[in-house]
This record gives sequence, C-alpha cells and structure tokens, in this order.
Amino acid sequence: MTMPPEFDRIARYFRPLAGPGGLDLLDDAALIDPPAGRQIVIAADAMVEGVHFLPDDPPDLVARKLLRTNLSDLAAMGAEPLGYLTTISVRRDTPEAWFAAFSAGLAADQQQFGLNLLGGDCTSTPGPVSLSLTILGHVAPGQAVRRIGARPGDEIWVSGTIGDGALGLMAATGEIDDPDGFLADRYRLPQPRLGLARPDLVRACLDVSDGLVQDLGHLCRAGQVGAQVFAPALPRSKAAQRFGDEVLGLCLTGGDDYELLMAVGPRDAPALATHARALGIKVSRIGMFTQGAPVVRVLDARGATMALPRGGWSHF
Amino acid sequence: MTMPPEFDRIARYFRPLAGPGGLDLLDDAALIDPPAGRQIVIAADAMVEGVHFLPDDPPDLVARKLLRTNLSDLAAMGAEPLGYLTTISVRRDTPEAWFAAFSAGLAADQQQFGLNLLGGDCTSTPGPVSLSLTILGHVAPGQAVRRIGARPGDEIWVSGTIGDGALGLMAATGEIDDPDGFLADRYRLPQPRLGLARPDLVRACLDVSDGLVQDLGHLCRAGQVGAQVFAPALPRSKAAQRFGDEVLGLCLTGGDDYELLMAVGPRDAPALATHARALGIKVSRIGMFTQGAPVVRVLDARGATMALPRGGWSHF
Repeated sequence: MTMPPEFDRIARYFRPLAGPGGLDLLDDAALIDPPAGRQIVIAADAMVEGVHFLPDDPPDLVARKLLRTNLSDLAAMGAEPLGYLTTISVRRDTPEAWFAAFSAGLAADQQQFGLNLLGGDCTSTPGPVSLSLTILGHVAPGQAVRRIGARPGDEIWVSGTIGDGALGLMAATGEIDDPDGFLADRYRLPQPRLGLARPDLVRACLDVSDGLVQDLGHLCRAGQVGAQVFAPALPRSKAAQRFGDEVLGLCLTGGDDYELLMAVGPRDAPALATHARALGIKVSRIGMFTQGAPVVRVLDARGATMALPRGGWSHF
Repeated sequence: MTMPPEFDRIARYFRPLAGPGGLDLLDDAALIDPPAGRQIVIAADAMVEGVHFLPDDPPDLVARKLLRTNLSDLAAMGAEPLGYLTTISVRRDTPEAWFAAFSAGLAADQQQFGLNLLGGDCTSTPGPVSLSLTILGHVAPGQAVRRIGARPGDEIWVSGTIGDGALGLMAATGEIDDPDGFLADRYRLPQPRLGLARPDLVRACLDVSDGLVQDLGHLCRAGQVGAQVFAPALPRSKAAQRFGDEVLGLCLTGGDDYELLMAVGPRDAPALATHARALGIKVSRIGMFTQGAPVVRVLDARGATMALPRGGWSHF
C-alpha cells in the first residue's frame, strides 16, 4: 500500500521538525512532560493570506511570521518557549517548493528560538492559505506578566521601534518607497522580545499587534488607569522617520509591530533599561499611566491632545 | 474609547466559555497548572468550509464537530480532556447569529465533555470559513495509548459503526436517501469515545478519520504487522445496511467516522467488551493482526481478498 501524498509531505517536510514530544508526528496527539514546578503558557493565532500576509510573500517568511507572532505572545507573558503545533490549509495545487520553503522557515526559527514542532494538521482549502499556530511555553508559577497590573504613576515603555509594521505593509505593496527593504522586512519578520518582560521589573505587558493606542487601551482597562503618550517620544526607525510626522498617526495606530508595551514602576525603569541593553533590545519611555478613566491620550510636542483617525486594527 | 466589534464579539460570545486558565480571554496567552504527575496530551486539527463541513451546516454543529474531532484524538490516546484553544476565520459580513450559534455549540459540548476554552484568535478571511482547534488533555505518565503496539495475533476491534460518516456526507448533500436524518447526523456530530481505550486493555489505537483501511495501515506500519479484516464483520448501522453490500467499499474507505480502531490482545478482549458495555459503547471484532508486511487485506464472506477503489481520504 503506498502512502497518499498528504502523508508523504508530512514525512518529508514536517517530521524533521518534530521534537521528542511530537512522536515523529505519527500519533493522534503529542505527549509533553511539563517542566517540573512550572506553569504552562499557551496561545493560538491564525494567519490568512491576503489579510495577515501577502499572496507573494515568500513562504519561509510567512512561516517565520506565524511562529514569531506567537512567540511574541509568550514574550508578552514573560514565558519561555516549549513547542508548537500548526495547522496548514492550502490549495490542492500548491507546489512542493511551497512546502519546502515553508518548512525551511520553521526550521530556521526553531533553531534560533529553541523549540520544536509537536503536531498539527495539513488540509486542502479552495480559498486563501489559512494557517494557525498554537504555542506552548512555561513560566515560574504566579510569575507570568499579565495585562493587569499598571498603576497610576507607572511609566509606559516600549521595545524597538513603532510603526514599521504598518509602513512595511505599504512598502511591501509598493505604496511607499523602501529603498533598502528595511520596512518590508519589519512587516514580514517580527522580532519576538523573549526574555525582556521580567516579572520583577514589568508590572503589566502585552505585545503591540493591533496598533499601539488600541493595545495600550487594553492595559488601561485591565488596570483601570488612564494613559498619556507623548508622541515625540515614540521610537521610530530611521526608515520611518524619512516620512516625517505625516505618518505619526499611522505609526501610533497601525498594526503588526510585535513590540512589547510595558508598565514599569519608576524605580524599576533603570534596571529595565540595563536588562534590555544586555539583551541588545532598545527600549524607550513614551509616557505614563494616570489616575482616572481607562482612556489613552496622545499629546503632541506642544502638549495638545492629538486627534487620531482610529485606535487600531479590528477584523470586523 | 469604544471597543472595536472584534473585542465586543469575543466578550459576548467567547468569554463566557473561558475556564480559569483562560484569564477571561483578556491576556496574550492562557495559564495552566498541569495536573500533578500527569503527562500533557495535545493535538490540533483544522476544518475548512466546503472541505470538512458544508456551507449550510448549522454553525452550532460545525463548532461541536470541530471540538469532537479533537476530543476523538484524545480518546485515541486514552487521555482525559483539559481544555482547548480555537482560531476562527470568517468573512467580514458574518452575522451575529453565526457567532451566537457557534459559541452555543461549544458551550453545549464543553458541558457534556467537561472542558473549557483557554484562548485563541478570531480573524477575517475573504474565503471559506477556516477553523482550527487545539485540544489539551492529560494521561498518567507512560500510559498514553499509541499507534505503535499491535502484535501478530492481536485482534482488531472497532467502536460504534463504520461508514456512517461517508454515507452521511452523501445524505447531507442529497445524493442518497436518509429519511430520519440518522446518517447526516453521524456526519455532522461525531461521538468521541473518551474512556474506551484503557492502556491495560488496548495495545495500540487511533481514531478512524480518513477511512478504516487507510487508518488501519497506520497501525500496521507503526507495529510492523499485517492486518486481515473480515468484511462481513464490519459493524454497520441499520441506516447503512439499507444500502446493502454495494456501499461496503465506501464504508471501508470513507472518512469522518471518528470511531476507535484498536489492537487488543486475545486475552484482553472479554474485558474490553465488558468495559465498553459499561460505557454504553458498542465494540466489534473485525479481524486480526498478522505477521508479515504492513499491508491491510480485506476478506469477503468467501475468504477472497476484496479489491478496494482506494485506501482512504487524502487532501492532496
């Protein structure tokens, strides 16, 4: 009896990615021995062709973005990666080269971030490529960094630069100029900030995926605090700065940054900066949490409240 | 700041489904304290509209099938359910009623099978509805029932009736008659056989999702054994029997049964039958594992090898 192509593909491209718990992808489920005395952290995200990535994005980068956006969720909780499962729905005529490139992207990032494939599913679809990934990590019990925890007087810190994701999408679609491809790269390949959100230094955290202002609103509602962001303090890449303050609104509300937004007690800020430097991650203070209603205000250079076209991205 | 509709929907339809580890779906990831001294079992499956379910299937049944096919993977490993994550990609114009029905289906099955929602993602898609579900369960360490383990001389047992899934799809699309809707129900609402595959009674197991002959081939390859199935012993529902032996090939190779296929030592078979009876699950012996190449032979009433059009379902 020959094996159908579905199983051949799994054997060829995905079995080499499986860790010990993945049982060579030969069973109905994976088996994990949870690390002793740790809590399991688990998250799942979906990515759809034409919505989360472009039809002509290289498959290896699509795979890495899928893995990295989920790693970013672990980073936001202060967790370490353990493994992942992925479901892949592609058209029946998808060439072998697509699977080869997609799995090569996963392989590269598995090595970089130290985790293995545990399982998943590969099916056909008559529509756009639809992907999902479930990531598992672990933290010391009670030490996960949550969205709840910001207090009035806490400083708002953010990693990396903000706005490159939104500008990068425009660069990738040819709407704006991107001579060295920096912005498109930032859209296609997020940098999960694993290890940054240390529970002794960060009171609350999330990753900026739907736009900084909207995501900051989540921290405000969870902590029942307000927030003031000082727009000129927003860290922007050199590539983003070329477009001047015209794109400031887009940078504040565009999605796909996958940087960490953190509430940090003023006395912990120097230690966070030192810790970030040791990791090679740039961090910037962009404002503070305030008493009052859970509302985000963005102030311009003159201290006036900026009007923004929207808070951030919503699928519906 | 008003919340975008995406978050409203999550709050209204999915937050009520969240268990304690789900953190009210307000964080980037869920937190689980693994049951002390147990192994974690985890699996993920995708379902695509037009491939795994029909566009006009009721959303509550689609949700329950999604959860149940994954519960069936836990059942195959002899595991108990712990929780699940789900990703949902639907068109932007999907009505509120769809979300209400879909979440009501999940709620019903959460109660029936004793598990809770841990997290996930809800996104838009320009294409068919694409769903994924990751299920977590647990087993005593080393006690998971694997696909590997069948030995020559072991009996082949199967739960429930075989072929209703494939006939049910034909009934649901109006290709065959189904006066009381029994077959379409079997296609739309699998019955995960949780608790049946006890590690002390079952040497190897999987759930029949891609067709009995093909799935039995997996047990053969894993155990390096052959298999003989006696076709007249195949348990078929009254509804399936109405179509006579003409559909025997379809029943043997059609997908969507979600019954358990088990390798059972001859001395354990009576205890398995007793155990199944206590659970209210019908089990049938349909053949035996043999020495030799990992090939499945199906014998007809005269002992002749039946020719089958295919082994089972492949997505590619």
